[in-house]
Amino acid sequence: MPPLAEHTTETAADALEAAEVAVLPTGSTEQHGPALALGMDHLAARAFARTAADREDAVVLPTVPVGVSAHHRQFDGTLYVAEETFERYVRETLASLAEHGVRKAVVVNGHGGNSGALRRAARRLRAERTAFAPPWNWWESVDDLADELFDENGGHADAMESSLLWHLREDLVRADRLEAAAAGAGDGWGESVHGAPVGFDTIDFSESGAVGKPTQADPEKGERLFEAASEELHALLDWLAERPLSECWPREGRR
Amino acid sequence: MPPLAEHTTETAADALEAAEVAVLPTGSTEQHGPALALGMDHLAARAFARTAADREDAVVLPTVPVGVSAHHRQFDGTLYVAEETFERYVRETLASLAEHGVRKAVVVNGHGGNSGALRRAARRLRAERTAFAPPWNWWESVDDLADELFDENGGHADAMESSLLWHLREDLVRADRLEAAAAGAGDGWGESVHGAPVGFDTIDFSESGAVGKPTQADPEKGERLFEAASEELHALLDWLAERPLSECWPREGRR
Amino acid sequence: MPPLAEHTTETAADALEAAEVAVLPTGSTEQHGPALALGMDHLAARAFARTAADREDAVVLPTVPVGVSAHHRQFDGTLYVAEETFERYVRETLASLAEHGVRKAVVVNGHGGNSGALRRAARRLRAERTAFAPPWNWWESVDDLADELFDENGGHADAMESSLLWHLREDLVRADRLEAAAAGAGDGWGESVHGAPVGFDTIDFSESGAVGKPTQADPEKGERLFEAASEELHALLDWLAERPLSECWPREGRR
Amino acid sequence: MPPLAEHTTETAADALEAAEVAVLPTGSTEQHGPALALGMDHLAARAFARTAADREDAVVLPTVPVGVSAHHRQFDGTLYVAEETFERYVRETLASLAEHGVRKAVVVNGHGGNSGALRRAARRLRAERTAFAPPWNWWESVDDLADELFDENGGHADAMESSLLWHLREDLVRADRLEAAAAGAGDGWGESVHGAPVGFDTIDFSESGAVGKPTQADPEKGERLFEAASEELHALLDWLAERPLSECWPREGRR
Amino acid sequence: MPPLAEHTTETAADALEAAEVAVLPTGSTEQHGPALALGMDHLAARAFARTAADREDAVVLPTVPVGVSAHHRQFDGTLYVAEETFERYVRETLASLAEHGVRKAVVVNGHGGNSGALRRAARRLRAERTAFAPPWNWWESVDDLADELFDENGGHADAMESSLLWHLREDLVRADRLEAAAAGAGDGWGESVHGAPVGFDTIDFSESGAVGKPTQADPEKGERLFEAASEELHALLDWLAERPLSECWPREGRR
Amino acid sequence: MPPLAEHTTETAADALEAAEVAVLPTGSTEQHGPALALGMDHLAARAFARTAADREDAVVLPTVPVGVSAHHRQFDGTLYVAEETFERYVRETLASLAEHGVRKAVVVNGHGGNSGALRRAARRLRAERTAFAPPWNWWESVDDLADELFDENGGHADAMESSLLWHLREDLVRADRLEAAAAGAGDGWGESVHGAPVGFDTIDFSESGAVGKPTQADPEKGERLFEAASEELHALLDWLAERPLSECWPREGRR
Repeated sequence: MPPLAEHTTETAADALEAAEVAVLPTGSTEQHGPALALGMDHLAARAFARTAADREDAVVLPTVPVGVSAHHRQFDGTLYVAEETFERYVRETLASLAEHGVRKAVVVNGHGGNSGALRRAARRLRAERTAFAPPWNWWESVDDLADELFDENGGHADAMESSLLWHLREDLVRADRLEAAAAGAGDGWGESVHGAPVGFDTIDFSESGAVGKPTQADPEKGERLFEAASEELHALLDWLAERPLSECWPREGRR
Repeated sequence: MPPLAEHTTETAADALEAAEVAVLPTGSTEQHGPALALGMDHLAARAFARTAADREDAVVLPTVPVGVSAHHRQFDGTLYVAEETFERYVRETLASLAEHGVRKAVVVNGHGGNSGALRRAARRLRAERTAFAPPWNWWESVDDLADELFDENGGHADAMESSLLWHLREDLVRADRLEAAAAGAGDGWGESVHGAPVGFDTIDFSESGAVGKPTQADPEKGERLFEAASEELHALLDWLAERPLSECWPREGRR
Repeated sequence: MPPLAEHTTETAADALEAAEVAVLPTGSTEQHGPALALGMDHLAARAFARTAADREDAVVLPTVPVGVSAHHRQFDGTLYVAEETFERYVRETLASLAEHGVRKAVVVNGHGGNSGALRRAARRLRAERTAFAPPWNWWESVDDLADELFDENGGHADAMESSLLWHLREDLVRADRLEAAAAGAGDGWGESVHGAPVGFDTIDFSESGAVGKPTQADPEKGERLFEAASEELHALLDWLAERPLSECWPREGRR
Repeated sequence: MPPLAEHTTETAADALEAAEVAVLPTGSTEQHGPALALGMDHLAARAFARTAADREDAVVLPTVPVGVSAHHRQFDGTLYVAEETFERYVRETLASLAEHGVRKAVVVNGHGGNSGALRRAARRLRAERTAFAPPWNWWESVDDLADELFDENGGHADAMESSLLWHLREDLVRADRLEAAAAGAGDGWGESVHGAPVGFDTIDFSESGAVGKPTQADPEKGERLFEAASEELHALLDWLAERPLSECWPREGRR
Repeated sequence: MPPLAEHTTETAADALEAAEVAVLPTGSTEQHGPALALGMDHLAARAFARTAADREDAVVLPTVPVGVSAHHRQFDGTLYVAEETFERYVRETLASLAEHGVRKAVVVNGHGGNSGALRRAARRLRAERTAFAPPWNWWESVDDLADELFDENGGHADAMESSLLWHLREDLVRADRLEAAAAGAGDGWGESVHGAPVGFDTIDFSESGAVGKPTQADPEKGERLFEAASEELHALLDWLAERPLSECWPREGRR
Repeated sequence: MPPLAEHTTETAADALEAAEVAVLPTGSTEQHGPALALGMDHLAARAFARTAADREDAVVLPTVPVGVSAHHRQFDGTLYVAEETFERYVRETLASLAEHGVRKAVVVNGHGGNSGALRRAARRLRAERTAFAPPWNWWESVDDLADELFDENGGHADAMESSLLWHLREDLVRADRLEAAAAGAGDGWGESVHGAPVGFDTIDFSESGAVGKPTQADPEKGERLFEAASEELHALLDWLAERPLSECWPREGRR
């Protein structure tokens, strides 16, 4: 069915009646090194979400474009809101949808920094029996494929992300800056000293803003990632669509 | 210049250096009667904002798609967040941009229900000398033209909004439902008894969700509205771009 | 019946049993130009509220004297609290009254800056089915009369307000400063540039603190305003007293 | 000087220049047993505050009429706001005054339940170096006299309060209900079991709402209390007016 | 029964079934003058709480070690959290226990500064019918004995506290600094001017950090205090264990 | 040096002068399956923290015993506070210490559920330049050793935790219930469906409350873990003690 925003309230009434599950894309607008566009994460989320437009049992909500990115703030162009603000924005949006009867959702997320807030939102929506809305990070669904395609310990603006964007929006990848991205990239996300995380901002462990091996990027690999992750997403939507709502709520303890 | 989300952090550095003013589109996803798409307000805001992409002194931010629409919640498909949540989301986004040196902005707004929150956001950003970011409601810039074009006391999903969307996205207007919209429309926004507002939800004073005379809608009138309001927006951007930041801050009192 | 504060808990029991509706006066203590006393708005609200003491179906609550006036802060003597603080103070006061069985109220308001907060308070009290408490701004109930009496595009410390205070408390109007008030007055409330509000503080658009034509003030006109608005208030109280509580609550949507 | 609310912004400018200290009356609207009016506490606070109108170095602010009285809520007519709301309302009012240069204040308080909030407000205003604003509970300034006049272990609507109101507003004391007040009165404030307070609401330890010996009330004793406490208040105002602001701020620790 | 933290979830199931009442020790880590350890208050609370380990009807929770001590912050080593933070920490801990069926508790408190927050926590837990959890300040249960043992108007790090700690943890009392503590001690808690509290920080009225007569301290007196107060605590636990939960909730008003 | 709570304010003055770094133990009181005590996590944190008492450059703060454990709430005995409450409690405690000049700290944490809150606390303390306080999860510092000692994909009440507690507090391990713990244990932490986390509470993926292979537990392995992790902690303390404070603060961006 078309995205929710393209329905009128009348056609939405039918669509929401038919929908088993909603899809809410969330991302960020933040530095992705010298080669990738700032919108990488919300564009990726939107692209995955839109594949659900083929389904009659899923309704796609508008994209939340700015997220939890304060740790990238030293790099030009990064936008961010507080973790609590993002959590509320997502939670309240899903709660308003639940009033129309759609109480299962997948939050299709493109930005790792959003994860904590999305889990909290999901927990609270579930605890209050408003909605069951697990977050889905596209890259976590295709770990194995990524390991096969790339030899990197990435995390941000890496070969994986670069490939995906190259596939989705070639115009938003500056291939001639992948070298620079790689040259200043961190080896892995964060910085740890004797087990303690001590790198709180990206600038603490990456000069270019990237972490990983951006030069391994390739649009065909991007296509494979997109196809594989989309398949996982649809399998998740199938699973969720079939799951009775009553099994989604928290279990009771002994008392 | 291209929208911020399409820049890399490197090109954003130059663009933000050149930019005098930012443009943040905000709207809603809410019922607009049986004829107009739920996304009306954020699509309109985005369309106006994108006209600023022609300017070298303005940078366009991503669109905030869900707003303060609880009063439409009884109509299917309406999404909303709390007024405070929306205010924070907008304010923090603009504050994060200000860290990159762009401290003047226009919030191009498509939804009247957002106005209170946007004014509060603007006041606080100004009071804290973070940014000067007045909201701009497109319909308020073309009052006279609207009076000339339509004979309505509108306010929501009226001839004015319907015409604009017809011009911008013909596919999102169900012309065959304009009659129904009009038949159940309220005569004016809200309901007042002896000077007191007593209609707090749209459903209190409109059966179809519309207020005004939707059947007067016409795509050519929509084009005229779009052109005229865009002109006003650009005049506003010119004015703001030239205004020294020092004149934007609050004046001091006597002590 | 006497104001609530003059009842004992015993006589209040009977009075609250008899009362159909409460009246809560709210205003501000803020600059009103060189001619009018700072207490203008709460004194006006109190004066209107006290006319309800004649009724057996209405109970008058104490006056809330400080409101949402930060935009007047550059003028000496202005007191203010945050919008949220004012909203809570009013909302919780009305909620505490509702525990005693009086769940309909009119907030008789003397200050325009309080309006947003009062509407939010009313919405939330209604949404939670605690109370139905529309705000009533005295000047909005007598638009037509004001147009007849004065030739101004006022808004603050104007001929309308000056006349009312002159009637109510002659000692609090410095008639010899009405000229000065007029000389430095703004032409209309706020300042707008191409449809965007850019005057966030009164000092941005008024030198004297007044907006309108204070020299048109006249105590007899003030008396007419007071009588006419009081009549409207009582008509509103009649309407509300007769309205069944069950019709005051929000309507349900389809689901 | 006249109360602040009776000044215009022009005369306030001079008055605030001359003022060394502000006086903010705070109280409550809550049950005071069958004999005393609900407004007892804010009426008392206002009466004490108004004695400061004789001074050229003190400016009297409007009265805050509803306070922290949830523990009286089971008795008809009691109004209340949350402790945090009351604290904010008082704190922000005083902070707005401080912007005009008056940074020392006495909060003349008539209700014991407000004390915790007032102390927190005072601590925070002091810690942030906004204002020095100690609360003053009238009854605490005349302990010895009360012991001399009455043989009670009072606390609420007792002989002390009844006498004061009798003196101030004879019309608001129902002398014929003092017996009933006494008959159902608690012996002392609260209820303690082996050192733990277990009476959280007044109804837990008083049937009539009073605590003490209301029948010992006498308007002449009320006059003596009023005179004696007023004297203490003025001595406090003298002390505070003379205290340099620099000595009002918190002392530094070693680092 | 053993403290809760020493149970497994299995043995806790039985223990919580058997328990009628919980004991939550709260204190502070704050200056206690030159002779007493900073942990005085939480160590005392823990010691009293642990005496309840003998009972089969009481379960002892872990100790909350940092409290509301900002007023001691100028003295080295003082830790503190905001009053609201402490209140939440205690309240939520007790609410989580209530989910396991134990809804009566005594908060065994060692620090006077925590009292306001503990009362608010208790009121709210009671109002929401989550738990009945009165605070118990050990020193308030043995007033008479203290008057008999010491000739002081104490309040902090005084003979009473010093004696108790001497009894409990001799190693944490520097007897050779009791003189210094006494030499710089305040005469009574706080500072009052004409009935107004004007000493908001301990440093305002005590040079050494102590208030009272520390040199009267004696470990044998400490033992007597400990025994007497423990007896009171157990009497309170008996009383509470026997009190039906239904009698613990707030009483209803007339409506 | 002795723990902070055992110092007087005088000896604390010297100790805090000498201290380069603070150690704050945090944990939880929550179900750890049928074999381990509820206090596991705060007891472990305390044990590690206490090893720092040997150092002259480190001061050990009291243990925070209740944490972010709502996801264990269905198992008897679990206590918890909200994530925000825990974050505030920790952050404010560290900020109060910073006032005494110790602005570097390690939060020695025993409970994985606390991690998000601890990172946020650390980020904010750093962003405000109050303190640099990275969290340290003991198990993350000895990954390799754990892989060597155990063949499990654990996470909670597993062989790793069981071994440690067996070493530290043999009396708090019910070795005869390790079988039961293992029988009902989950295979790995959480539950994932096509990349989405859908197990929000422990009870969703573990019957006994444990995750891992508890029967592989062994006190000697616990000793090795304790020694190895303590070594890592001390290496971290060395590193932090030597790091200049100026290098701890966030780096600036370009503007």
